Amino acid sequence: MPPGDLRLASPARARGSDDEEAWVWSQIRMEARRDADAEPALASYLYSTILSHSSLERSLSFHLGNKLCSSTLLSTLLYDLFLDTFSSDPALLSATVADLRAARFRDPACVSFSHCLLNYKGFLACQAHRVAYQLWTQARRALALALQSRVSDVFAVDIHPAARIGKGILFDHATGVVVGETAVIGNNVSILHHVTLGGTGKVVGDRHPKIGDGVLVGAGATILGNVKIGVGAKIGAGSVVLIDVPPRTTAVGNPARLVGRKERPSKNE
Amino acid sequence: MPPGDLRLASPARARGSDDEEAWVWSQIRMEARRDADAEPALASYLYSTILSHSSLERSLSFHLGNKLCSSTLLSTLLYDLFLDTFSSDPALLSATVADLRAARFRDPACVSFSHCLLNYKGFLACQAHRVAYQLWTQARRALALALQSRVSDVFAVDIHPAARIGKGILFDHATGVVVGETAVIGNNVSILHHVTLGGTGKVVGDRHPKIGDGVLVGAGATILGNVKIGVGAKIGAGSVVLIDVPPRTTAVGNPARLVGRKERPSKNE
Amino acid sequence: MPPGDLRLASPARARGSDDEEAWVWSQIRMEARRDADAEPALASYLYSTILSHSSLERSLSFHLGNKLCSSTLLSTLLYDLFLDTFSSDPALLSATVADLRAARFRDPACVSFSHCLLNYKGFLACQAHRVAYQLWTQARRALALALQSRVSDVFAVDIHPAARIGKGILFDHATGVVVGETAVIGNNVSILHHVTLGGTGKVVGDRHPKIGDGVLVGAGATILGNVKIGVGAKIGAGSVVLIDVPPRTTAVGNPARLVGRKERPSKNE
Repeated sequence: MPPGDLRLASPARARGSDDEEAWVWSQIRMEARRDADAEPALASYLYSTILSHSSLERSLSFHLGNKLCSSTLLSTLLYDLFLDTFSSDPALLSATVADLRAARFRDPACVSFSHCLLNYKGFLACQAHRVAYQLWTQARRALALALQSRVSDVFAVDIHPAARIGKGILFDHATGVVVGETAVIGNNVSILHHVTLGGTGKVVGDRHPKIGDGVLVGAGATILGNVKIGVGAKIGAGSVVLIDVPPRTTAVGNPARLVGRKERPSKNE
Repeated sequence: MPPGDLRLASPARARGSDDEEAWVWSQIRMEARRDADAEPALASYLYSTILSHSSLERSLSFHLGNKLCSSTLLSTLLYDLFLDTFSSDPALLSATVADLRAARFRDPACVSFSHCLLNYKGFLACQAHRVAYQLWTQARRALALALQSRVSDVFAVDIHPAARIGKGILFDHATGVVVGETAVIGNNVSILHHVTLGGTGKVVGDRHPKIGDGVLVGAGATILGNVKIGVGAKIGAGSVVLIDVPPRTTAVGNPARLVGRKERPSKNE
Repeated sequence: MPPGDLRLASPARARGSDDEEAWVWSQIRMEARRDADAEPALASYLYSTILSHSSLERSLSFHLGNKLCSSTLLSTLLYDLFLDTFSSDPALLSATVADLRAARFRDPACVSFSHCLLNYKGFLACQAHRVAYQLWTQARRALALALQSRVSDVFAVDIHPAARIGKGILFDHATGVVVGETAVIGNNVSILHHVTLGGTGKVVGDRHPKIGDGVLVGAGATILGNVKIGVGAKIGAGSVVLIDVPPRTTAVGNPARLVGRKERPSKNE
């Protein structure tokens, strides 16, 4: 569901990044133990995906490897690839935790961190993209593109490995999201399903949208071309946006027109 | 394809519910035998999915279990879960049969009941949702959410387990359908692909659309907020609906406006 | 990404069809060898999907069989079915090669022929459709419909087996594409994701769009009814088209209106 306001105060909000990660991981394990006790049918699943792992990056790497593997791309290869990448750069796990928080606190339908970790294909697609992006920047392009393709098959989310994506991202529902090669997405952005950040087909090179911090893009919105969506802007569901949208401004319709402007920054920006 | 008019009279139309279910199941078996004879490449598939089973609920549970299983959620666990649930409440199987009839008689491209049972991912997602809904009402929420997530991965259909859905439902093509937590869908409703029954993001609580009996929602329509779509209304393809739509009225456009009203109820209402 | 202009001249452009196929296959093998050498994690995958095969039709049949198989539709059965069909009619492989060229030369994000062959689910769905269409015309309808369903599950692309599709087709991103039973798509057509070529729900029989050569249909466009989209026309993203569109004319909006006409044919027509 579209993100609501922040509803829960996190006790760890003021802690450092390592503490924050440790707290979220301890919450996830607590939730998994509670759910495994209450639902024996899930006990084995929760053990293999969460409770048997010593860290969030191991749990996530195992889960992603299982989801994205095929008869020709083995889960063990993917597990090693994800774990190596997440272990190589602390900023990656920090972004993962920010994404977990984004779902937990901006989506009224998200009941727990483990709900997001296990079940949100937008979250999982975004984490796989973070790995694909690392591979792309290391010129391991064939592997990055193979990963993009598996994510598109399995989650119906198609993010080019070169796209730059911030942290605290909520891809809600996520089916049909397409993000082009030169797109940039800031921090604390919420993007609903069927959203396209695409090109107009008329240019090559830098040809995709730039999405500012704290933007909300409604379901089915199509944003095309190297346009700038300003900080805190809102793009209405079903809009077709071919123009820049100023900060804290709402755009709606096909073609989109600007309809309102919020004078004060919101807390998500 | 969008639903056409009723084209075939069912000989079982006037029978009781048990007779109706028995008749549909006997048709499905007859169709499977005919197809297995005509197409040896499918014989083993049709035997394992239909002909080896003693009832519609067993066939459906086996097929759903196979489609939705993963390396961590085993098909046998899912089979038992589906069969236990379908066996626990006769209203569930009655709804399944009404959904099979909806596809067979409202979709010109549906050539047989077995075609729908085996191949329509909208039908299969809807049956899995009926099970997830039962789990949700029994407070087995972690399992209900895991099932929702598998359906979203496998069929690209994302229905919150708490959503209330009637019978005689046709989710045609179904890719990208999203139905929110507090949405309600009446009986004999046809919903095309890419349809969202979502929230506006501004409210929590009861925040999703209520769809009346006999409504037709065209491809790509986005209906947002706790709005009421009246009995027999039609929502045009690509519409963005943020307002109530009166009974037997057509809404089109972005934002949607009301364009016409049918004075007499149709036979589907 | 939406198709750009032709950027590369193919040395084989002027050759015969057999030469062209041989050249593209030799390019694919060269690319796969290069990528396997550079990326050991992909070596085994590239060997099994490309380098171990003696022809493009064998490689494609293996890859499609692996992607589309399930526990009840075995990959070996699908491999034999695809290979038999591709081997039975040289026009099929010629269309495959034209589709590979369409992605390579019209999509700025396509870096190689093997990138398209391995990773483009729109390309793979289109090849599977060519096989399903052959089955449909041979009255093997149950198998054709089973194949359509698997493609819809795996790639989220739903093309009725009776739809007639030309060659040089680019289904870019492809998630959510729906093509109805009586739709016709000409040659050198580019269709983005979430595009529907559907019916209005009011008629049976010949009820779906006819798309001329060289047409570009933008992301999320919905074209409904037995309407004609003329040669070289462009349909804007998010449009809802219920009317004929003349050749070389652009249609945009919901409902779509005609906004411009190009006087001279482009090179893609």
